[in-house]
Amino acid sequence: MELTSFISLDEAVKRGKIYVPRTREKKVPLLEAVGKYSMEEIESPSDFPPFDRSAVDGYAVNSRETISSTKTNPSTFKLLGRLFPSSEEGISVEAGQSVVVTTGARMPQGTDSVVMLEDALEDGNELKVFVPVRKFQNVSRKGEDLKRGFRILKRGEKITPPHVAALMEYNIKEVAVCSLSVGIVSTGDELVSGKVINSTQPFIQSLIDRSGFHAVGYGAVSDDKAEIERVMSNVKEDVIIMTGGTGPGERDILPSLMEAKGKLVFRGVRIRPGRTTSLGVYKGKPVFMISGLPVAALIASENLILRLIHEWMHLLPQQKETREGILDRSVVNTLGFRSYVRVKTEMRGGELRVIPTRVTGSGVIYSVIDADGILVIDENSEGIQAGERVEIEVLRW
Amino acid sequence: MELTSFISLDEAVKRGKIYVPRTREKKVPLLEAVGKYSMEEIESPSDFPPFDRSAVDGYAVNSRETISSTKTNPSTFKLLGRLFPSSEEGISVEAGQSVVVTTGARMPQGTDSVVMLEDALEDGNELKVFVPVRKFQNVSRKGEDLKRGFRILKRGEKITPPHVAALMEYNIKEVAVCSLSVGIVSTGDELVSGKVINSTQPFIQSLIDRSGFHAVGYGAVSDDKAEIERVMSNVKEDVIIMTGGTGPGERDILPSLMEAKGKLVFRGVRIRPGRTTSLGVYKGKPVFMISGLPVAALIASENLILRLIHEWMHLLPQQKETREGILDRSVVNTLGFRSYVRVKTEMRGGELRVIPTRVTGSGVIYSVIDADGILVIDENSEGIQAGERVEIEVLRW
Repeated sequence: MELTSFISLDEAVKRGKIYVPRTREKKVPLLEAVGKYSMEEIESPSDFPPFDRSAVDGYAVNSRETISSTKTNPSTFKLLGRLFPSSEEGISVEAGQSVVVTTGARMPQGTDSVVMLEDALEDGNELKVFVPVRKFQNVSRKGEDLKRGFRILKRGEKITPPHVAALMEYNIKEVAVCSLSVGIVSTGDELVSGKVINSTQPFIQSLIDRSGFHAVGYGAVSDDKAEIERVMSNVKEDVIIMTGGTGPGERDILPSLMEAKGKLVFRGVRIRPGRTTSLGVYKGKPVFMISGLPVAALIASENLILRLIHEWMHLLPQQKETREGILDRSVVNTLGFRSYVRVKTEMRGGELRVIPTRVTGSGVIYSVIDADGILVIDENSEGIQAGERVEIEVLRW
Repeated sequence: MELTSFISLDEAVKRGKIYVPRTREKKVPLLEAVGKYSMEEIESPSDFPPFDRSAVDGYAVNSRETISSTKTNPSTFKLLGRLFPSSEEGISVEAGQSVVVTTGARMPQGTDSVVMLEDALEDGNELKVFVPVRKFQNVSRKGEDLKRGFRILKRGEKITPPHVAALMEYNIKEVAVCSLSVGIVSTGDELVSGKVINSTQPFIQSLIDRSGFHAVGYGAVSDDKAEIERVMSNVKEDVIIMTGGTGPGERDILPSLMEAKGKLVFRGVRIRPGRTTSLGVYKGKPVFMISGLPVAALIASENLILRLIHEWMHLLPQQKETREGILDRSVVNTLGFRSYVRVKTEMRGGELRVIPTRVTGSGVIYSVIDADGILVIDENSEGIQAGERVEIEVLRW
């Protein structure tokens, strides 16, 4: 594996982009859709509320008839009845008349505002109103919440609880989500024998799951081409991730298998950690080959695999939380590589200090548990000096 | 419902704290535990790595024997064999000897460093080394990742993918999580009849689910005490949330049912929206009574229900993402109330502008879909002037 064959991350995305997996979308109930990506755009089919309705409990009146109302000189109305949100029939009101309305009730014809309970006095079917109300006071206007044609859900957007609330208002109970699934296979005799524990597979599996997709773990397979091909053929998911063990020869087995039986799209990406990351295609499925070391596997998954999945499926990018701080210790970078440095943050002297936990060591799990964020060092940088102001991506799982 | 009976949010938490629900913890497989809260503290049972091992592919040597190595005057070694991470047996090395090691292989006795492949030349079983290596160069030291006794998981901590990786390294495949569950019942004739759609129940259900707990929806029940009690008795979950419809009389039905058949802990909280939020106890279960209007229900759930669940279960608080900006429009507050104002943010003139979307209107779903964050106005504030610097909580679902 020659360093010179490595390509930049952007180039890797560009080359990988065209190998779109055969992913189907799937209609799922709203509650299952939360956290997944919408494959459809949904606009509100009608105004909401669908009609003017009372925003409070009170008395529906024509506001003009309350203009001169005061505590000592109230205006009086004849009460025609009560309206609830559940009321089937409407009521028509004429001059000098009012209706008791509860929150959400449809405004009776002839009224335009609601007097609040505490501003009036009921006496049998007579009502005294002590304050004037403005036109549309205490009324939720038709369409004031969502206008017909309002885009509730964008295509490619991650579905959240508020989407559930808005879609439910229109009785929309299902939504088409991106059902992209990933099968993860690990290779390495040392994993099969149990001599080394395969922590990377469940790590990446949980990461993909938490990112809105579905991942299935296929365990470990020994460093044997026929065996690897047999397991890969059995993967039912749309995308395959192969996590390498650290066994001998294995660095060549997968790429050469791709070259012989499928296609090798690229081999090696200029990212650190994660530079062994490669992409192939096998029986029409994209096959990512990533390191078996957890941190390298994490960086490859976050920055290449998930990014390509977003490109393939035309999903909107997730906004990352960032923070600014002062770099506490200089970090160096190999020119041409994009480095992902795990950092801890700490307030000191009123400033956020950004402390690199470890620049190398892609097997080191501690550096991920303990890290608050990631500092990305660009390809054309030789490093960042202590004392410089930097922006980090906050790690929030 | 008199305003004077309302209590502050902090007082509500204080009064509610003692009604700890009968929640059991549950051992679940690691992958299921992600996103839930750990009920146990887990320390690493041993050093990791468990022994010194090679951090690269190369040749294990005694560093002292390489001191004078140069390109033109290499030091020479006799190769004894190969070690893989899967190798069962160790090898002992004497002066002038070396072993081929792959990443992760246990360091042979008598060696303390690894020469990288590109810095040496193999010729049969003779090895030429062209550069000196330092003691422990390219070696992962025993315990350098996780020392024995390192606290991998805190009690009450939310479980993340990196925890999965670290626990798996120690073959820990299950963890005890907080299995608190919530049953949600909605009341209101208008919901039962279908005249008004119950969007609040699935909204709050998805919110509780996404927060690391488990919520079950029980649909809607009409405004009838006997009927409500029957449904409440059937709830199997640890905590009950009653979301009110907007039907008449209902504001009294639930609290009076609590007073008659259980206990009414408090009625009304000085938060806006969400001031009708109340707490009762029924057959030993905490019963939250919250508004049926989605935004009021959201604010009550986020700031009282989830906060009390954290108190009851001794869970660590979730760090909220905050941002600072300049308030774009003045907002007023009712003294004594804590207000939660939905805001949108926008970069303008190099400054983050914080634009209140809507101060009132707790039924307005649009204001939640469209909001980027929440501005909290304290009880002792009469409001915040436009132009003031404010901190908002970023809404991230």
